[in-house]
Amino acid sequence: MVILDRAEIEGLIDLSVAGTAIEQAYVAASRGLVNLPPVGHITFPDVAADCHIKYGHMHGDPHFVVKIATGFPHNAEQGLPTGNGLSLVLSAQTGVVMAMLHDEMVLTDIRTGLGGAIATRTLARADSTDMLIVGTGPQALRQIESHLAWIGGHLTFKVWGRAAHKAEAIAQTMKDRCTITAVTDLETAVRSADIIVTTTGATAPLIKADWVAQGTHITAVGADAPGKQELETQLVAQADVLVADSGAQCLDHGEVSHAFASATPVTAALVELGHALSEEAQGRTDAQQISIADLTGIAAQDIAIARVVLEAKGVA
Amino acid sequence: MVILDRAEIEGLIDLSVAGTAIEQAYVAASRGLVNLPPVGHITFPDVAADCHIKYGHMHGDPHFVVKIATGFPHNAEQGLPTGNGLSLVLSAQTGVVMAMLHDEMVLTDIRTGLGGAIATRTLARADSTDMLIVGTGPQALRQIESHLAWIGGHLTFKVWGRAAHKAEAIAQTMKDRCTITAVTDLETAVRSADIIVTTTGATAPLIKADWVAQGTHITAVGADAPGKQELETQLVAQADVLVADSGAQCLDHGEVSHAFASATPVTAALVELGHALSEEAQGRTDAQQISIADLTGIAAQDIAIARVVLEAKGVA
Repeated sequence: MVILDRAEIEGLIDLSVAGTAIEQAYVAASRGLVNLPPVGHITFPDVAADCHIKYGHMHGDPHFVVKIATGFPHNAEQGLPTGNGLSLVLSAQTGVVMAMLHDEMVLTDIRTGLGGAIATRTLARADSTDMLIVGTGPQALRQIESHLAWIGGHLTFKVWGRAAHKAEAIAQTMKDRCTITAVTDLETAVRSADIIVTTTGATAPLIKADWVAQGTHITAVGADAPGKQELETQLVAQADVLVADSGAQCLDHGEVSHAFASATPVTAALVELGHALSEEAQGRTDAQQISIADLTGIAAQDIAIARVVLEAKGVA
Repeated sequence: MVILDRAEIEGLIDLSVAGTAIEQAYVAASRGLVNLPPVGHITFPDVAADCHIKYGHMHGDPHFVVKIATGFPHNAEQGLPTGNGLSLVLSAQTGVVMAMLHDEMVLTDIRTGLGGAIATRTLARADSTDMLIVGTGPQALRQIESHLAWIGGHLTFKVWGRAAHKAEAIAQTMKDRCTITAVTDLETAVRSADIIVTTTGATAPLIKADWVAQGTHITAVGADAPGKQELETQLVAQADVLVADSGAQCLDHGEVSHAFASATPVTAALVELGHALSEEAQGRTDAQQISIADLTGIAAQDIAIARVVLEAKGVA
């Protein structure tokens, strides 16, 4: 069995190779070519924590993946990461455990970043340059890196967070790799952005419908569990293009869930990202449209990125 | 993270310590003190294979366990083990992965063996000496070892299998540790046994109801999935004492499932092993009774034996 730790895993990932694999995974998932049983879940009510077990097999792959991810919010009080976990790669021919990727969530962070960039490239206007990142956690950095790798160095970034000093820190960290500024006025930044990527754990909307200009694309990656919401429900309702990584998951707990739960009439038909990527369904058709990608994270991404790591290591 | 392989894990297990832990786990499970979410399952139809993910948390334990077990029957054609897998032990306080027990199924084998011995000690007549093992796979050896450790060296063994040479091999392997003979006539052996332990993967009954003498105890561990059956349905129906490791699982796919599925009237009320162990429910009350323990294997056993390994290693 190959055992890789976080540092080695990070070193093995080429964002371009991984992005291609994840793009293919979205298409396969939307076409029903990934066997994804229901996600396992166990809770630890005493510490308001839980563990998710996502697993699945892409048709034709020689291996399958079991990802175990824990969320223990109280870890933050001790200065520990709140997320943890690993992915196991097993042979789909013999059941033998081929590899343990003890990534401590870094694969989830990277595949989420790439998912955002893939959605943006698919749905934003091709002449987009001004990108606003909302949120200052690790995913804010991942989104900037992924968008640079997947879309290009012509993008310029603004970053906003509730804590201004954290936005400054992100700008400092990235300033040698791109043009980036921390901003303190969210509304103004939203009004002038071509692309908005929201990465917060907000449980009440941050982005108002009437702030968003025609032609803007929004990729929302924060809502990964019930109760989270970054975009005003009316913004989702008015969007011209609505794309979900998984229709079922996003209706359950993504940005689009709030409109559906409150029976708010929605303008656009919901399309899956895999179908938009393969052009089996329509994405943006007009430079004036407002498009939204609602990403909750799917196990097909986990499978794809685990394969990329194994291939880079020379195992698969 | 502590990583242990099969050999080290086997070396760390004391059957007496592990038996005590598993006995407590049965009691806790029957009292509803183990959080056991539904078992995860993914199939690989091309190779008639599957993978089960069992996970759970015993109330108050500082850790929880995720066990991944694969069954790939075609491995046998290449001389490879058909079962594989590992157990992960994670902190229930921080979500950190504490240990990977890459046991390649040995923990499942050992906990199944101990479960059988625990059930036999609880339900067989105290003056039982003659024990018949039906089956010649790895579990036959585990049951002999566990019964010797948990009940005692006064037991004498007969072993029967469809392939006589395999029964001979078991007898040879164990002959320095106990009195053991291979037998070829199953009916005669059944008629004279005090204790019968069935360990086969039979899909049609091997043991007939009218072969079994009054006062006999039977522990059946072979039926771990739908379609398996070692005991004639009428034997289950006529038994005076019927004990299941998990009522729900045994009604779904244990020995008792066949009587229930065919609406065959059953004499005894079904009792859970944990309740019989804690004397919250009645086991054997009379030396003339026929008792049956139907064991399908429960995740509480996996949790308990993983804890035993960690404690022996000095981790937990």
